[in-house]
Amino acid sequence: MKFELNKLDESSQARAGEITTDHGVIQTPIFMPVGTQATVKAVHFSELKEEVYAQIILGNTYHLYLRPGMEIMEKAGGLHQFSTWDQPILTDSGGFQVFSLSERRKITEEGATFKSHIDGSKHIFTPENVMDIQRVIGADFIMALDECIPYPCDFHYARRSTERTHRWLKRCIERFDTTEPLYGHEQTLMPIVQGSTYKDLRKMSAEFVASCDRPANAIGGVSVGEPTEDMYEITETVCEILPKDKPRYLMGVGTPANLLECIAMGIDMFDCVMPTRNARNGQLFTSEGIINIKNAKWKDDFSPIDINCPASTSHLHSKAYLRHLFISKEYLGYQIASIHNLSFYLWLVQEARKHILEGDFTTWKNQMVKKVTQRL
Amino acid sequence: MKFELNKLDESSQARAGEITTDHGVIQTPIFMPVGTQATVKAVHFSELKEEVYAQIILGNTYHLYLRPGMEIMEKAGGLHQFSTWDQPILTDSGGFQVFSLSERRKITEEGATFKSHIDGSKHIFTPENVMDIQRVIGADFIMALDECIPYPCDFHYARRSTERTHRWLKRCIERFDTTEPLYGHEQTLMPIVQGSTYKDLRKMSAEFVASCDRPANAIGGVSVGEPTEDMYEITETVCEILPKDKPRYLMGVGTPANLLECIAMGIDMFDCVMPTRNARNGQLFTSEGIINIKNAKWKDDFSPIDINCPASTSHLHSKAYLRHLFISKEYLGYQIASIHNLSFYLWLVQEARKHILEGDFTTWKNQMVKKVTQRL
Repeated sequence: MKFELNKLDESSQARAGEITTDHGVIQTPIFMPVGTQATVKAVHFSELKEEVYAQIILGNTYHLYLRPGMEIMEKAGGLHQFSTWDQPILTDSGGFQVFSLSERRKITEEGATFKSHIDGSKHIFTPENVMDIQRVIGADFIMALDECIPYPCDFHYARRSTERTHRWLKRCIERFDTTEPLYGHEQTLMPIVQGSTYKDLRKMSAEFVASCDRPANAIGGVSVGEPTEDMYEITETVCEILPKDKPRYLMGVGTPANLLECIAMGIDMFDCVMPTRNARNGQLFTSEGIINIKNAKWKDDFSPIDINCPASTSHLHSKAYLRHLFISKEYLGYQIASIHNLSFYLWLVQEARKHILEGDFTTWKNQMVKKVTQRL
Repeated sequence: MKFELNKLDESSQARAGEITTDHGVIQTPIFMPVGTQATVKAVHFSELKEEVYAQIILGNTYHLYLRPGMEIMEKAGGLHQFSTWDQPILTDSGGFQVFSLSERRKITEEGATFKSHIDGSKHIFTPENVMDIQRVIGADFIMALDECIPYPCDFHYARRSTERTHRWLKRCIERFDTTEPLYGHEQTLMPIVQGSTYKDLRKMSAEFVASCDRPANAIGGVSVGEPTEDMYEITETVCEILPKDKPRYLMGVGTPANLLECIAMGIDMFDCVMPTRNARNGQLFTSEGIINIKNAKWKDDFSPIDINCPASTSHLHSKAYLRHLFISKEYLGYQIASIHNLSFYLWLVQEARKHILEGDFTTWKNQMVKKVTQRL
């Protein structure tokens, strides 16, 4: 993996860059659509390429480990082969889902014991087996096992947890560095900064992660319920410490405005279920603001969903038609809305990149934040 | 509308033809995907063109009348504009749904009174307003109002009902011939043969319909629970009477084998929810036989869904991947299976056409019926 910085913005910490992987180039800042169970919900892979212009997607280790399972995954030749997505993939470590989905979880020094949310079967994720699992899945970027600290959390637990996450990181690195990719293409391990909302812990964690000197770094444990201002403060604090010449990935963030503000702080990579999940509830993010497509006001509005989005789906269909599909609970409504929202997110980060390169990022960003937060 | 017969098969009553409408040419025999509520469930219109090779789709008057309603439909400029589907469309009369879906229906000489399955509101379909509604929807082919007789039905009711359907047909024709299309393109009214499973009633009805001398004719009231052999007998009887030089549409039929057998009897047009509905339950129709994709036997079968289908979707994805999507209840599973099944149905009728033109239809048909009915 190579990371090249094309431009540093002068009015902010924003950067435009290019990540080169064995599955192709990623232009940053980038948003990664979430493909939890080997599919971005309701969107064909051809649409991710030709409509959304996705450059990298995310898979969830927890879900893939449980279903289809690692035996099928290895027989298939990894997630790229299994899903037919031939561009870059990032998998998370499963840590977040263990905390948010599974029952009877128990954290020990060894790892995280949990019960499957599907059939109640008992499993353990350790730093070592999470590396092995992600070798089998075969993503281009794989994440270290961390404990995702819930919000709020008392300082003492947050410190103990963060220190354990650091010890787990060392074990991840040890395992990763002594094993090989299974399918011939390179994999890159990303450590994760934790520390809850405590600035001192975040600094300590960022310094520890930076000292590990891996090719890319991530910030976890945000978007877990903390106030947006806290998330921004954590991001700013951590970005000051993480090396400038390596990609920075802010996990699980966020709204269009969140993306723009965090790009300004120096974040290069994002993922979030919001564009797809909210799409399925009829919430559209557009270049003019936020639309609840189920509202009666759209019933005879025959204007396109969003004329600024590159997806032909966003130009072709009218708001009135999409509203009809939602009122009628038709699959095609979820499909169109999902393509549109993802296409909007990808358009937004590519516009951000364009304005970083052109040197007017902050002016553009401040105008755009106003637009994208307004409710139509 | 023009209908040209390209070839009459010598070993059966099968025919290859071409229907020309203001929205393009339809090569027969043809299968029409069902787009109930202004969408073929889970399939994009671009996929209907580029993957399925659909040449005409069906819309349901009952559903469109209730939702989005005729005010929106007229403001949109009709169903073609509203949905963005710019090829031919056929709408049914709403008669079938009144009998299958709505509550408290009541049939009088005037028409069919019913309560909406959505909100319980009271409505009436008359031969006249069903013509007016279908003028607003603006399909290329529109259907006369008929009573869909349930199976089984006693002879006396069947006769009274069929005679009333004939009187309704006269009123439909009167209204149709004294009104104009709203959107500039031609519409063609199709009468419907009824008569339940009674051969004498079917003959009488077919003779009445033939005597109306409309450009195309339909056979209704089949696929309502009667034995397959009865459906074949009705179809054969009616096809002997309906004029050879006009398209014949068998409503609501059927399985791949049903299509092949009825093509052999002289049917030119089909529609059925089976390929899409069964797709959503994991039943795939393929050139090798029928697959229940949820079965464990497919879990590590990485062969394509169906290599003979023209849809790239059918080649691209493996059975193991599609099974994973179904087991995980992912939208993309329903989407892929729907595209595949429709693509298979369209492939099947186009293969039938090819073999009619080549002169070996019956030989091919008999082999194919064996293949498509076998369970894999």
